[in-house]
Amino acid sequence: MSQTQDPAGGGIQTRSIGVAVLGMGNVGTEVVRILEESADDLRARVGARLQLRGVAVRDLAKPRQVDASLLTDDPAALVARDDVDIVVELMGGIDPARTLIRHALENGKSVVTANKALLAEYTGELATAAAQSRADLYFEAAVAGAIPVIRPLTQSLAGDTVERVAGIVNGTTNFILSAMDADGDDYDVVLKEAGRLGYAEADPTADVEGFDAASKAAILASIAFHTRVTAADVHREGITSVTSADLLAARKFDCTIKLLSICERVRDTDGTQRVSARVYPALIPLSHPLATVGGAFNAVVVEAQNAGRLMFYGQGAGGAPTASAVLGDLVMAARNKVHGGRGPLESTYAKLPIASIDDVPTRYYVSMRVADRPGVLAQIASEFSKRSVSLAAVRQEGAGDDARLIVVTHRAPDRAQSECVAALEDMDEVLKVSSVLRLEGTDD
Amino acid sequence: MSQTQDPAGGGIQTRSIGVAVLGMGNVGTEVVRILEESADDLRARVGARLQLRGVAVRDLAKPRQVDASLLTDDPAALVARDDVDIVVELMGGIDPARTLIRHALENGKSVVTANKALLAEYTGELATAAAQSRADLYFEAAVAGAIPVIRPLTQSLAGDTVERVAGIVNGTTNFILSAMDADGDDYDVVLKEAGRLGYAEADPTADVEGFDAASKAAILASIAFHTRVTAADVHREGITSVTSADLLAARKFDCTIKLLSICERVRDTDGTQRVSARVYPALIPLSHPLATVGGAFNAVVVEAQNAGRLMFYGQGAGGAPTASAVLGDLVMAARNKVHGGRGPLESTYAKLPIASIDDVPTRYYVSMRVADRPGVLAQIASEFSKRSVSLAAVRQEGAGDDARLIVVTHRAPDRAQSECVAALEDMDEVLKVSSVLRLEGTDD
Repeated sequence: MSQTQDPAGGGIQTRSIGVAVLGMGNVGTEVVRILEESADDLRARVGARLQLRGVAVRDLAKPRQVDASLLTDDPAALVARDDVDIVVELMGGIDPARTLIRHALENGKSVVTANKALLAEYTGELATAAAQSRADLYFEAAVAGAIPVIRPLTQSLAGDTVERVAGIVNGTTNFILSAMDADGDDYDVVLKEAGRLGYAEADPTADVEGFDAASKAAILASIAFHTRVTAADVHREGITSVTSADLLAARKFDCTIKLLSICERVRDTDGTQRVSARVYPALIPLSHPLATVGGAFNAVVVEAQNAGRLMFYGQGAGGAPTASAVLGDLVMAARNKVHGGRGPLESTYAKLPIASIDDVPTRYYVSMRVADRPGVLAQIASEFSKRSVSLAAVRQEGAGDDARLIVVTHRAPDRAQSECVAALEDMDEVLKVSSVLRLEGTDD
Repeated sequence: MSQTQDPAGGGIQTRSIGVAVLGMGNVGTEVVRILEESADDLRARVGARLQLRGVAVRDLAKPRQVDASLLTDDPAALVARDDVDIVVELMGGIDPARTLIRHALENGKSVVTANKALLAEYTGELATAAAQSRADLYFEAAVAGAIPVIRPLTQSLAGDTVERVAGIVNGTTNFILSAMDADGDDYDVVLKEAGRLGYAEADPTADVEGFDAASKAAILASIAFHTRVTAADVHREGITSVTSADLLAARKFDCTIKLLSICERVRDTDGTQRVSARVYPALIPLSHPLATVGGAFNAVVVEAQNAGRLMFYGQGAGGAPTASAVLGDLVMAARNKVHGGRGPLESTYAKLPIASIDDVPTRYYVSMRVADRPGVLAQIASEFSKRSVSLAAVRQEGAGDDARLIVVTHRAPDRAQSECVAALEDMDEVLKVSSVLRLEGTDD
């Protein structure tokens, strides 16, 4: 924190807080713009001027909306500058972001980051560095863009017991599933369209295979349950096998299909508690608040013992919305530099064990082509009942070569459910199990 | 903060934080319960044990769910105790709450309060006391119960520019309007029912006349616009004149009626900014996110320049949900006592002037009985056009003695709109202006 006279100041603010921005993509560009355009407001809110010391980019030659003298392709040197108090990391990826952030924190510089992949692996290491040097590590922008989720979970609900966090936290897959649902188009067609509109990246793997949603589930589960949860702890299934036929069939059950990130406190019969974190496409009733979250929007539903059910909704991605979350963290980190104090530390005291997906009670929706002859339904039902999975609904459709059976189960351990499906696949009477999805958002 | 050995401790936590609770109604009872039931979790999250030193009540004889030795009818003595570090004020009303809170803050004790009426008048005085003694003044529970709204506005959006906050923040009136809408019952009938079910108090004035919603609007406007706004600055209209016929008529325009608390940054043509804070029942389109908020639920929609539109939804009242918000604040205040640092101070640097409702652009919905003869519509339209208010929709209903005209206007200064209505009331052709409501939540 520089004690030099603030040139634009006059009045009580004579200090400035040095800010380094690493990465100048969509979000970085917006952060730099807001730092400049809202400089006076930010100074009033922080109690000191936020002074941009430099912006680290990969390609110095590319034209940017910032004074060229601020650009550097040496992020390590920028982070190490004495006049940098806060580092805003928006480069993404594990390396070199991990090293840069750790170095910043080890040197007492606070860090604001939107890097979910990094946090989902290395929050422990980074939080330890922050704790030791009394620096802040803020990451509201890492989950659900502009929507305040991290702060409500770590602060507003700090006196409550969170039971469940379920969210639509990946805009790309929500855009794709919403479009498939609305237009009846198939996955491949909509994915191409999403790419053309800028909603999907050239390599969409991180989004469509659920890696991004899994990183966010790990972050949410960690803070909701005061337990360190990493991406490897999250059961993950993507949306690539969801078909427009599935969405059409879901409608017949008054449901739609969403890619959900679910973090749940699972209680065994003996009272033992475990944490389940999982990502998969699931049917949810059209009446569920998450069902109406369309396009690139995000929403997170939190259920806590005393607060009941809360929902947070808004824009989950995009330059300006994500920059809003970054700036909120930046102002808080800067205020702490000015007024003393610090944000919440990582809280992992509960150290709950991770529940395997096998043990988590789920509901299944299974659609299959079957031989059109008497007794098939009874045989299929018996495979479920053998494994103590009871059926909530069975629907037969078509006839002859096109005879189809749709089964919806009641809650039972996921392992039992998947064993039922495996048994169905072995039955001669079942010609093809065409779709297996879970059903979420129901009370029973 | 006592440095004595924590009897239940062992391990690193050797300090305890003394808590005084003032008032043991619904919320206070839940706060005391959670303090006890979640003691171990709270200790782990705070880094010290939260120790309940006493509970101030009016009637010592009334049986309570708390150790009788903790009860006192002398709140001032309880607040003054050396071993009280944080005061939780849940007694409501201006006096003696105001004096007790001020004394606590002046003595460096942090305060958590849910007292919206007090905050809407005296935040300035209380915040000054808090700033001088470096104590915290937290009040998440004062607006929208369990729903995090204060913290998102003061922290998450600290780097953004809020344009508008619009919310359903009074559960009683929302219950009444929802029930009138669903059942077609009249206001008086539903109000009685609400009282019977515990949704309305014996004297419902504060709720149905909009005083409660106005207090909350003042609090929201203050923090959203960094300007001190008090209840007196809020234009306030209640729901007592809303009829079931109004709700029925609203449906014909694909709208419903909600009591809204609206805080808006109003920009004049010369760029001058003012703050409008207002409470009134208004038509909103059924497609608007607030239209589906039913019963005793609350929701707040925030529009900010970079974040876009955010929505927060949940239980806005009730013992346990409100206690959840209180406990979140209590944990944060206690953490600050343990780790140093403090929450955000009151921020009033923007000092925006308050806009009179007269100057705020609004849209009107006017329903009237008219004489059924040629030229009436033209005469009525001319009263609007004379005052530069343009009409968005006109609908004629019934005939003869029952001829009615419904007019919906485009946006124009509220003074012009109300002058039009006054002119209509003076017209011989207008037999009765039966309903005047504003229309909100439309883009045009």
